Amino acid sequence: MVILDGKGTSDQIKLEIRDEVNKMKLKGERVPHLAAVLVGNDGASLTYVGSKVRSCDYVGFKSSLIQFNNDISEKKLLNEIKKLNHNPILDGYIVQLPLPKHINEQKILLAIDPKKDVDGFHPENFGRMALQLNSYIPATPFGIIQLLDRYKVPTSGKHCVVVGRSHIVGKPISILMSQKRPAGNATVTLAHSRTENLVAITRQADIIIMALGIPEYLKADMVKNDVTVIDVGITRVPDKNNSKGYSIKGDVAYDEVSKKASFITPVPGGVGPMTIAMLLKNTLLARQWN
Amino acid sequence: MVILDGKGTSDQIKLEIRDEVNKMKLKGERVPHLAAVLVGNDGASLTYVGSKVRSCDYVGFKSSLIQFNNDISEKKLLNEIKKLNHNPILDGYIVQLPLPKHINEQKILLAIDPKKDVDGFHPENFGRMALQLNSYIPATPFGIIQLLDRYKVPTSGKHCVVVGRSHIVGKPISILMSQKRPAGNATVTLAHSRTENLVAITRQADIIIMALGIPEYLKADMVKNDVTVIDVGITRVPDKNNSKGYSIKGDVAYDEVSKKASFITPVPGGVGPMTIAMLLKNTLLARQWN
Repeated sequence: MVILDGKGTSDQIKLEIRDEVNKMKLKGERVPHLAAVLVGNDGASLTYVGSKVRSCDYVGFKSSLIQFNNDISEKKLLNEIKKLNHNPILDGYIVQLPLPKHINEQKILLAIDPKKDVDGFHPENFGRMALQLNSYIPATPFGIIQLLDRYKVPTSGKHCVVVGRSHIVGKPISILMSQKRPAGNATVTLAHSRTENLVAITRQADIIIMALGIPEYLKADMVKNDVTVIDVGITRVPDKNNSKGYSIKGDVAYDEVSKKASFITPVPGGVGPMTIAMLLKNTLLARQWN
Repeated sequence: MVILDGKGTSDQIKLEIRDEVNKMKLKGERVPHLAAVLVGNDGASLTYVGSKVRSCDYVGFKSSLIQFNNDISEKKLLNEIKKLNHNPILDGYIVQLPLPKHINEQKILLAIDPKKDVDGFHPENFGRMALQLNSYIPATPFGIIQLLDRYKVPTSGKHCVVVGRSHIVGKPISILMSQKRPAGNATVTLAHSRTENLVAITRQADIIIMALGIPEYLKADMVKNDVTVIDVGITRVPDKNNSKGYSIKGDVAYDEVSKKASFITPVPGGVGPMTIAMLLKNTLLARQWN
């Protein structure tokens, strides 16, 4: 059994990006520049954004943190988005979610210039991904593809079952896995809350991607031997033995499933750490494409 | 066994659209206006475009046929596309494919304003469809959804196997069938040329959508009893008994498969006739949305 080490792979990708940036610097080229828009001062959002900014520093990107008060109007924020779209020295930017309730998130995301939408949430990027044109792939599915590819997990012709049909994970990864591409060419089944007889389906899978958000849902008796398991779930569950009062659980009962698996991602330390690396990768691509 | 009558359903949809147009006329509103761009004088393309124009007349739409010589430059055509994008009295338009070889088709399709792209081929429309925002769904998958919905074929929780991963049929219909929507909520498997052991997969299917382009590929021993079969294939095969010298075959061995099916589309007369109706429907939507 091989553990797909997201932390190590993410570090490796960051080093590769840092090398690229160093080459750009040597050639006297402008380095990639990522901005993060943060509205309000939600603790978790501050943490995420802070860690994105630190990663930019690490790889040598320029970064900007653009903060607004919680009471900024939707109109004002849309106007700020427009300015970012037209800022020629900004390669990409993200709007940290969630936004305050008086702001329509979709309206904001649709206002982002797809060329700078390094989160890959704009429909034009989704469509370009599906139609295999250059696009920014959302960080989580992009990270999964990278893990499978770098560990040379066989995917071509294999049966991949994706459980969960969210717009940012289940749906895009089901599309990517079925395409002619590295870590692709799989026969893909997209299962979800309405699926009848899920166990009969997961038992057939060569590869299972769990993106359901139900802790330890996938048990050993639901998989066949030598399965590859990618666990996207991250749920906090109360845990008296942990000093924080909770622990992080994936969608997979890791202890029992890992015994039958050929490849498996742990939680934490699997798909999660890949996301920031893939955001940096998209920003590098934005610098190169535009 | 119920035959899903595409010809009859298409006629019904056209009547519904004609009713809508009559209501618009009574209110003194401008009727929908569709344009078709045709480059060169390929016989088949002329036939298709002619039939689209006649259908516009039938439902009361205004239509325009915009013809260019085969030797029009890509630059000139892009310029004409720009004019169509800015024409305020044109709700939607299509560019009849194929284009001459000196013109990059993708470049042309990407230049069409997504708001007027009633063929639904622009990546922004594809992404909006996948993310369940208002969009123009490409005619063939849109027609399939309509047939399943109008005949009340059970889809929720059912296992739907799509065979073929083309950008205009297999991929979009696999996405649509898995969404929360009428004729959706299915567990969808997307199979293709690289799929191992296809027969084991099709035998599990409650619904099979064949979009492979191989005549009579799906045989009776590949399906279970009471299956629903949608046949998107249309291939000309030589036929001495036919005065034209050929006959049209679908991807399904209809005579034998229909005996086991609960619902099935014939070829011709199934999915094919639905496409023009759905193009008209998209044009009506364009008039209503913009």
